[in-house]
Amino acid sequence: MRFIYLILFLFVFNWGNAQILNDSIAIKNIFNEVMAHSTAHDNLYVLCKRIGARLSGSLNAEKAVLATAKMLKAAGADTVYLQSCEVPHWVRGEKETGFVLLNNGKKQDLNLCALGNAVATEAKGVKGKVIEITSMHQLDSLGEKVIKGKIVFFNIPMNPTYLNTFKAYGESGVARWDGPSNAAKYGAIAAIVRSLASNADNYPHTGVLGYNDSFPKIPAVAISTNDANWLNNMIQQQGVKEIWFKTSSKMLPDVTSHNVIAEIRGTLHPEEIITVGGHLDSWDLAEGAQDDGAGCVQSIEVLRALQAIGYHPKRTIRVVMFMNEENGGRGGEAYLNQAKRLNEKHIFALESDEGGFTPRGFNCSMNQEKKEKLLKWKSLFYPYGIDRFEGNGSGSDIEQLSEVGAALCGLSPDSQRYFDYHHAANDIFENVSKRELDLGAFAMTALIYLVAENGL
Amino acid sequence: MRFIYLILFLFVFNWGNAQILNDSIAIKNIFNEVMAHSTAHDNLYVLCKRIGARLSGSLNAEKAVLATAKMLKAAGADTVYLQSCEVPHWVRGEKETGFVLLNNGKKQDLNLCALGNAVATEAKGVKGKVIEITSMHQLDSLGEKVIKGKIVFFNIPMNPTYLNTFKAYGESGVARWDGPSNAAKYGAIAAIVRSLASNADNYPHTGVLGYNDSFPKIPAVAISTNDANWLNNMIQQQGVKEIWFKTSSKMLPDVTSHNVIAEIRGTLHPEEIITVGGHLDSWDLAEGAQDDGAGCVQSIEVLRALQAIGYHPKRTIRVVMFMNEENGGRGGEAYLNQAKRLNEKHIFALESDEGGFTPRGFNCSMNQEKKEKLLKWKSLFYPYGIDRFEGNGSGSDIEQLSEVGAALCGLSPDSQRYFDYHHAANDIFENVSKRELDLGAFAMTALIYLVAENGL
Repeated sequence: MRFIYLILFLFVFNWGNAQILNDSIAIKNIFNEVMAHSTAHDNLYVLCKRIGARLSGSLNAEKAVLATAKMLKAAGADTVYLQSCEVPHWVRGEKETGFVLLNNGKKQDLNLCALGNAVATEAKGVKGKVIEITSMHQLDSLGEKVIKGKIVFFNIPMNPTYLNTFKAYGESGVARWDGPSNAAKYGAIAAIVRSLASNADNYPHTGVLGYNDSFPKIPAVAISTNDANWLNNMIQQQGVKEIWFKTSSKMLPDVTSHNVIAEIRGTLHPEEIITVGGHLDSWDLAEGAQDDGAGCVQSIEVLRALQAIGYHPKRTIRVVMFMNEENGGRGGEAYLNQAKRLNEKHIFALESDEGGFTPRGFNCSMNQEKKEKLLKWKSLFYPYGIDRFEGNGSGSDIEQLSEVGAALCGLSPDSQRYFDYHHAANDIFENVSKRELDLGAFAMTALIYLVAENGL
Repeated sequence: MRFIYLILFLFVFNWGNAQILNDSIAIKNIFNEVMAHSTAHDNLYVLCKRIGARLSGSLNAEKAVLATAKMLKAAGADTVYLQSCEVPHWVRGEKETGFVLLNNGKKQDLNLCALGNAVATEAKGVKGKVIEITSMHQLDSLGEKVIKGKIVFFNIPMNPTYLNTFKAYGESGVARWDGPSNAAKYGAIAAIVRSLASNADNYPHTGVLGYNDSFPKIPAVAISTNDANWLNNMIQQQGVKEIWFKTSSKMLPDVTSHNVIAEIRGTLHPEEIITVGGHLDSWDLAEGAQDDGAGCVQSIEVLRALQAIGYHPKRTIRVVMFMNEENGGRGGEAYLNQAKRLNEKHIFALESDEGGFTPRGFNCSMNQEKKEKLLKWKSLFYPYGIDRFEGNGSGSDIEQLSEVGAALCGLSPDSQRYFDYHHAANDIFENVSKRELDLGAFAMTALIYLVAENGL
């Protein structure tokens, strides 16, 4: 009798609606499976506590390659293999030291960290007068006359009135990316950058800088937001005579490292490839829990959960642990190059690299036709509070896959806490919520399921 | 010229739309004000670190009364006054102790805490065989024959497959509220309750129980979720011979305490009262940061932010710090009684008591006509990601204000982390995110503004 109702129902609704119903049931199964049985949090524990910081070229990065290969096998992948790539091998060297000498003669130690890929100071350190800059424009307008021979202090806070903290990061981040070379252009001898943190804290937040080869490479460090506020205050009030700091970071020769790739082969269109991943490397100051251990273990969970509910994907699902997102992007490059070389058919890629916080939706980068198809699925995510499909972009490891035709998405979690931990010593396992992490893994699994089942 | 466009614009759109536009601009001002200048986090620091745990009847609770009265004055209230209420004065006494004696003769200490309002054990403690219960139904079906003379262990985990953790709390919470008396009905000598926590952790989470006067009052304690899993395992595997524990909590005579009330008098309809608040009391094991320091300082911020943007409310706004939500509800009762006695006209009340997490919307409890008016404002909250107006309910300090005609709302933040901290020793200042807290304060301020401006 129930079956008759079902048949009637399918006639009354059209086939598209029936598919949506099937999909909504499958997604509820995925939700229950992930929320009750996810192994993401346990896997994150291994990455963070058994391994730890995983900067490209480090021994830990290779340990993480082997550990996640094992996790992916355990999650039920058909095949797991390593894809090699040559990665930069930057090392921080000794703990950085520095101090501020005030006009009144007092000396105050500075807690600082070298920016990623930065050159070291001379062995005796770098010492000079400081000039505070509150916008990139100001740097240009001051020019060589004022800047030459000085240490430039970029004090550009993240704008608190942007709802999405990534927008503030994009805007203020230019100081870290371009600041040192822009300062060097006008003859600066070193750069100090206010950490890219949303709130006042005591952690220097590192992150990569980008040297412009046209100008001298100068040493560059980050200080905490609290210290930046203090330094600003000292400059305005007491007067600062000079700053000294010493770093011993250096770039060693490239090292062979690996992406980890796991597949479930599609049953109907095995040639159509769906990629889902996060990046395995992390900064050296902490455990890379939110950035991007979370994205890695969520991606592994996608595979596990789909296997656990007994789903056989119509298209091939590839889970990728990308190497070297933080200071080179070589893993993403290697993956793209292979896709081109083998003429692979990439239909979709999804990255999680905005932390393991409660998911709010997806950022999307694809043509209009595909976008419209994607947006039809939005209602399926509404019951789970994951219905913001508004942002652009995807993830830096996958964004170039558009060159081989892939539609792109990035998981978009709530962004409020990300820059409390980003690239700082507190990006540790304890600061990831199991339920938030699992909800993100669920969102990713549901979207990968929809593409594997329905194409895009 | 611009003005002519505005006039034209107002003719093309109808007046309602123009009001919506004004409101959206005011709300953006509120957002910028709160996100850039909120004092909620600083005030929370005072409540948590300068004062600390604030259980009703304690000295700290009275310190918090005075401190928040001061904060409300500083935030710009016209008038601040205290409303007295007689509150229960339960004290935990000495740190609880307990152990499990296994069948193999080994003894294992138990980390436990008395449930709120629970009676103490005898001085020598309580000792007995343990019976594990995994549903309330099971208790009834076992009955006196099995239960009599035993210690009942309620091991009912929160269901992880509910998106909203409050739903799981409501379902499993019955073990804490009704469990001890239901067990006593069948002759149990004590109760041990699995903590109401969403995740596996090592904290016993306290909270109030409700004795049924028809049955003997038996001692009742909580153990952590990890310990509950361990105890379950021991019962299944090794066998547990008996459990002993000792508590010395007691209920002292009632104490006079206070709600703190601050007002900005309305300019147009001063007789129409809008209430916004949180509860000032907290459990004694931590700092009551999420529960409910957050709701208190957010409510204070509503007042400060409206003053800071220069808004003069048409209706009277009252900010209330309610006393004794946790183990008596006497503050809410006193507030209602005064409303009745003075025949006050209450049009709206809003409480924040689900933590200072990223707000997702509001729970609502009001008649259909008012609900429809409220829902018209939903689009104003959409740009801030606060557009879920789906849940029922409000807050336990205000829910009875429906008796005097008030429409009711409760702030509905993301619920994923609430039960990681709820009533446990880790509900501390450090576990509140400034941006999340401020976003909640913004949401509340915006809604209070809308009601003050447009009525409801």
